[in-house]
Amino acid sequence: GSELLAAERAQSAVGVDALAELLHSRESLDRQKELVALLQSEAVFDKSQSQSLGRVERLQRALAKGKRLHQLAVERRWSLEEYHAAAGLIGEPTPYALHASMFLVTLREQSNPEQRKLFLERAEKYEIIGCYAQTELGHGSNVRGLETTATWNPEDKTFTLHSPTLTASKWWIGSLGRTANHAVVMAQLFVAGKNYGPHPFVVQIRDLETHQPLENVYVGDIGPKFGYNTMDNGFLLFNNIKIPHISMLARFSRIDPKTNQYVRPALPTLVYGTMTWVRANIVLDAGSVLARGVTIATRYCAVRRQFQDRDADRNAGETQVLNYKMVQIRLLPLLASMYALHFTGRGTMKLYQENQSRMNAATQSNGQDSRSPGPEELRAGADLLADLHATSCGLKALASTTAGEGLEICRRACGGHGYSSYSGIGPWYSDYLPTLTWEGDNYMLTQQVARYLLKSARAVLAGKGTGNDTSQILQSYLARKDKGASFDILEEDSEVVAAFAWRTAYLTFEALKHRDVEKRSWNSLLVDFWRLSTAHSQYLVVKNFHEAVSSPELVASVDAATAAVLRKLFRLYALHTLEREAADFFASGAVTTRQLTLTRTKAVLGLLDEIRPHAVRLVDAWQIPDWVLDSSLGRADGNVYEDLFRRASQENPVNDLVFDPYPWNKEVLKAPLPSKLSKL
Amino acid sequence: GSELLAAERAQSAVGVDALAELLHSRESLDRQKELVALLQSEAVFDKSQSQSLGRVERLQRALAKGKRLHQLAVERRWSLEEYHAAAGLIGEPTPYALHASMFLVTLREQSNPEQRKLFLERAEKYEIIGCYAQTELGHGSNVRGLETTATWNPEDKTFTLHSPTLTASKWWIGSLGRTANHAVVMAQLFVAGKNYGPHPFVVQIRDLETHQPLENVYVGDIGPKFGYNTMDNGFLLFNNIKIPHISMLARFSRIDPKTNQYVRPALPTLVYGTMTWVRANIVLDAGSVLARGVTIATRYCAVRRQFQDRDADRNAGETQVLNYKMVQIRLLPLLASMYALHFTGRGTMKLYQENQSRMNAATQSNGQDSRSPGPEELRAGADLLADLHATSCGLKALASTTAGEGLEICRRACGGHGYSSYSGIGPWYSDYLPTLTWEGDNYMLTQQVARYLLKSARAVLAGKGTGNDTSQILQSYLARKDKGASFDILEEDSEVVAAFAWRTAYLTFEALKHRDVEKRSWNSLLVDFWRLSTAHSQYLVVKNFHEAVSSPELVASVDAATAAVLRKLFRLYALHTLEREAADFFASGAVTTRQLTLTRTKAVLGLLDEIRPHAVRLVDAWQIPDWVLDSSLGRADGNVYEDLFRRASQENPVNDLVFDPYPWNKEVLKAPLPSKLSKL
Ligand SMILES: Cc1cc2nc3c(=O)[nH]c(=O)nc-3n(C[C@H](O)[C@H](O)[C@H](O)COP(=O)(O)OP(=O)(O)OC[C@H]3O[C@@H](n4cnc5c(N)ncnc54)[C@H](O)[C@@H]3O)c2cc1C
Ligand SMILES: Cc1cc2nc3c(=O)[nH]c(=O)nc-3n(C[C@H](O)[C@H](O)[C@H](O)COP(=O)(O)OP(=O)(O)OC[C@H]3O[C@@H](n4cnc5c(N)ncnc54)[C@H](O)[C@@H]3O)c2cc1C
Repeated sequence: GSELLAAERAQSAVGVDALAELLHSRESLDRQKELVALLQSEAVFDKSQSQSLGRVERLQRALAKGKRLHQLAVERRWSLEEYHAAAGLIGEPTPYALHASMFLVTLREQSNPEQRKLFLERAEKYEIIGCYAQTELGHGSNVRGLETTATWNPEDKTFTLHSPTLTASKWWIGSLGRTANHAVVMAQLFVAGKNYGPHPFVVQIRDLETHQPLENVYVGDIGPKFGYNTMDNGFLLFNNIKIPHISMLARFSRIDPKTNQYVRPALPTLVYGTMTWVRANIVLDAGSVLARGVTIATRYCAVRRQFQDRDADRNAGETQVLNYKMVQIRLLPLLASMYALHFTGRGTMKLYQENQSRMNAATQSNGQDSRSPGPEELRAGADLLADLHATSCGLKALASTTAGEGLEICRRACGGHGYSSYSGIGPWYSDYLPTLTWEGDNYMLTQQVARYLLKSARAVLAGKGTGNDTSQILQSYLARKDKGASFDILEEDSEVVAAFAWRTAYLTFEALKHRDVEKRSWNSLLVDFWRLSTAHSQYLVVKNFHEAVSSPELVASVDAATAAVLRKLFRLYALHTLEREAADFFASGAVTTRQLTLTRTKAVLGLLDEIRPHAVRLVDAWQIPDWVLDSSLGRADGNVYEDLFRRASQENPVNDLVFDPYPWNKEVLKAPLPSKLSKL
Repeated sequence: GSELLAAERAQSAVGVDALAELLHSRESLDRQKELVALLQSEAVFDKSQSQSLGRVERLQRALAKGKRLHQLAVERRWSLEEYHAAAGLIGEPTPYALHASMFLVTLREQSNPEQRKLFLERAEKYEIIGCYAQTELGHGSNVRGLETTATWNPEDKTFTLHSPTLTASKWWIGSLGRTANHAVVMAQLFVAGKNYGPHPFVVQIRDLETHQPLENVYVGDIGPKFGYNTMDNGFLLFNNIKIPHISMLARFSRIDPKTNQYVRPALPTLVYGTMTWVRANIVLDAGSVLARGVTIATRYCAVRRQFQDRDADRNAGETQVLNYKMVQIRLLPLLASMYALHFTGRGTMKLYQENQSRMNAATQSNGQDSRSPGPEELRAGADLLADLHATSCGLKALASTTAGEGLEICRRACGGHGYSSYSGIGPWYSDYLPTLTWEGDNYMLTQQVARYLLKSARAVLAGKGTGNDTSQILQSYLARKDKGASFDILEEDSEVVAAFAWRTAYLTFEALKHRDVEKRSWNSLLVDFWRLSTAHSQYLVVKNFHEAVSSPELVASVDAATAAVLRKLFRLYALHTLEREAADFFASGAVTTRQLTLTRTKAVLGLLDEIRPHAVRLVDAWQIPDWVLDSSLGRADGNVYEDLFRRASQENPVNDLVFDPYPWNKEVLKAPLPSKLSKL
């Protein structure tokens, strides 16, 4: 294996180091190196038994990892960023994960000063350990349908928290099952008989000493899952428990305990902003998630040889399977996708941050100085945020679907060995899949995108376009529609981007016609909306990728050969997508059938040939350490078979069993079990 | 939940019982009922802990299940069919699975009488327990590349079995890791320095008493996998061990111990036949495999309510998610697919069996009576077998891909709860996935289909068509090609079938042109071949499904309303496939863009509306018992939430753990672990 990978690396001039730096920054690469060395040196972070153990054992070991990680963070005074980087490297979620993310984030964002002191400060020290309890057995997507109630008691200034039905049970709540002693609970707020909708409450659920559930709290772990088994997702029911006034997180809205009145939220758009930020992060991560599968499959397919090429001469020896076009057509577009998603995530995040700081500035100057241009800036900012919000919904759906499904494609590309846990792909895939469902189910998010695009189209038609990118593509479509379009997709990169924009605009106005003119029901249009959202998001990816590969930053940081290969990746992503979605492009008139045929038979195949020699270096540039990949197939040194063999014969506890194989003997074992498991 | 399912059942007149009988036969439904009652009554077959346990524990329990199953088979004198039916119901493979299938099958088919006595008879009694060891670490698909050698020693009439390299290690071999004491080993046969290719040898590998590996045999389990973890897939290396002459399975080819000469195989086509049979079985099974996921998702989506429909009036209450078009477009075509695959599997199997008995008859009469028409019959039979072989390759690939990917679509359609192991989909999906890789990797099989179609097309062009269905569709395409075609797909079912045939023929001649006229390399055409094979297989499914729904048998066995719904399922399968593959259909000229648009916007959506009311009854007809589904979401009574809750709170061993949640305490548990696991 190692000679083959060496030869791969020798045949390409892609500048791995510069490219790695462009992707991840020198600083974070250095940090990663240090962290991996540290974590790898501690026995508690050992990964070798994870896939062999049962949940009871895995969960305990995961908690031990979480504890040690926290200790290291304290000892070494890690920043939040360093802590999260380290947590990402250990390869599985720990039972602290939701405490360290959603619980702390919610407290930070939604506490008033008093609550920060009471809850946040102690939570940051892990004196209280929490979770974010929104979803219930009966309701997830439809948050307004939650059944848990929090009723304001004016007489003693408390709330009564109650789960009136079985389906009101909180469910799926990460870190809740066995770990948390507190929870942020979303409950319908009732004041004087009126329902004010779901609000967040901080509730203690277990005794801080004994860790036993408090009275009238029923809590536990929801059981085994397709993945994520090192996390104790939990359930939680309340039987009329009383909690004090301070429990309701009060930064945005609150009950005035004197008047018993509900005080409305001040800045709803801020929460909106957080959701956008979370989704932009999912997009950014999707590139790296996919990169893990593509790194493994690409290296393995360069090492794996099977069959002679049918047209090769007799002595040619067996072909690396990466040379087969049927393998390339599965892997290389994914290689392009991981770059595409990464740059798109970065682009979205940048837009978001620019806008946030502009809005913050505006808010502040607005407060201090009434002559400042605050309000208009705020309005423009809010417009952009609405655009960002919608685009991040669509991109979250597209990116996580691409990454999740892409991992399975990578696994299958590895043939039989892909099915071994030692491939490293399977466990990673199963743990990633919830991303397609949480933070907005990917199918449902597409409705939000469609709603926004319809709204934008109506505005544009009414001459009230905002001038943002979405308005612009709709406007230029309208301007050119009657003349028709023909984009020179095979020659000009920017024309490919324009063809994607055209298709989005076409589908938007089609959908608008169905809804506004033909008055079709919303439900009957859901499939069209899903297509529309997908089309729009693909446009955004193509646009962002194109901007990245033509940016001065890129040209300045990598050599010309590398930049040229990246531009090929862009073309592969764009043209392969275009070909798969041929029907849309054709129907919109963006391209001709002749162009489509050429794309498939010439352009895409040609790009596969051109990118093939650089495949290994292009995954090397992602710089995923072997310890993180945790894969026999994806090892940087190519010693695939040796490592599979070593793990099977040395790390596999099953090999300590001596079976009595005969069906008439009831005993299954010949000898008592001296398990590797019990050694640890 | 239960009222909702009751309402679903009330609103449809589909005759569940008659349909069930048509699908599975009364006899096998009755048998299933009895077997489930029996198995469910025995504690050893309990399923509740499977997904919580680690591999060491699961494997032992699976062996216990296998033992008990064998005991029952002996006690109750089960037929082979009954045994396999029972094994299929317990929900996971046992370590005997490869003994009971490939090991016994190979011995039956490839032994001479002496070997039957020595190996097969003892194997049937489980005195010897075996496996089928073909794949190696370095070679799977390319069987000719195997490295294990069996060298004939003329001096003492033995073979020396040897693994010359690490990659020669047998790998992935089911039942080998801990269970088997014998193996059928495929090894390159060397006689007097000449390699005669891979041949099967029966080899003892473990002591029959101590179950320890024999000297110079290195054997073990290959470790944890994405699924199939109740099976001990194993590795096996030989260090120059000697085995007697009788070890080489000698029905088809053998070494004459007197002359030391290799004797060539007599009837190679028979083996060919077995592979076809195995693949036809995979097609038939794929329908049932998928049916499990579709049953679960359909019932759950009828019980799950989330959001009000946007166009509904305020008091409508939440909608069953099965009403959302975006859910329907994912599930209902899969519902159609499971029927389509089932009928296709049946059709293929019937053709195969008819041909086998014809050939057997011909072989026999040929032997007994030289005036019989044996030879011509045999030739026709061999032609048909070649056709069946190719079509079964393509169908195996299409069917298992549809089922495997379909299960994941079903899982996602269930939202968050789909991710719980209690959904029953995840475990079933992970255990099924190897079917996409074994018995011919699905991507590679498509090359065999293409090769056959190219050969047929050349024959047809040369006026030498065999008159089988493949030749006919190629011929009618040629006859009509210049006039062009336009199929009335929206009105006539048979025209839809014809459009699929047309597309296959078009793609075949396109591929032929690339290969024979343009002399393109085989490799550069792999992607085209994959498309071609997929197209051809889709044609076969559409054709088989159409024949089934228009057959007199069907009309005789179900009432008219049910038959009408089945025809709608046919149309949905066909038109939905056509729409997804629009580019091909359009390029071939089989349909116009107008037709394609109407298919998408009218026909498919209309069919969703029409089939929706019957969805629950259409899955009920599959008659999968609750114990087999092992799913909270898919329960026939609809008590989804109660069952999720019961399992989480009563069957989940994790809830016995009391964590010490504070990172500064090194201990992870407060109290020692009184695990549910240790109780069993
Ligand atoms: C591993 C994991 C961890 C989680 N962690 C947490 C946590 O820590 N805290 C927390 O609060 N929650 C958590 N969740 C819950 C998660 O956020 C929800 O499962 C998710 O939001 C999906 O909601 P649902 O399950 O209600 O899906 P549903 O809405 O029930 O979806 C079911 C199906 O209906 C479809 N559907 C529903 N409504 C519509 C509509 N209007 N139009 C069209 N189609 C529709 C969906 O597309 C889907 O196919 C977690 C979930 C998982 C799997
Ligand atoms: C759970 C499980 C159980 C098994 N049980 C058994 C058993 O009991 N006994 C046994 O003998 N074996 C067993 N196998 C092995 C199985 O049969 C092989 O894994 C399977 O045949 C695939 O072969 P491979 O792994 O060599 O794939 P490879 O051939 O290495 O495939 C790797 C990749 O290369 C591609 N590729 C390879 N050649 C070509 C080509 N010529 N053209 C285009 N693309 C190509 C493939 O499509 C794939 O993407 C088992 C496997 C699994 C996963």
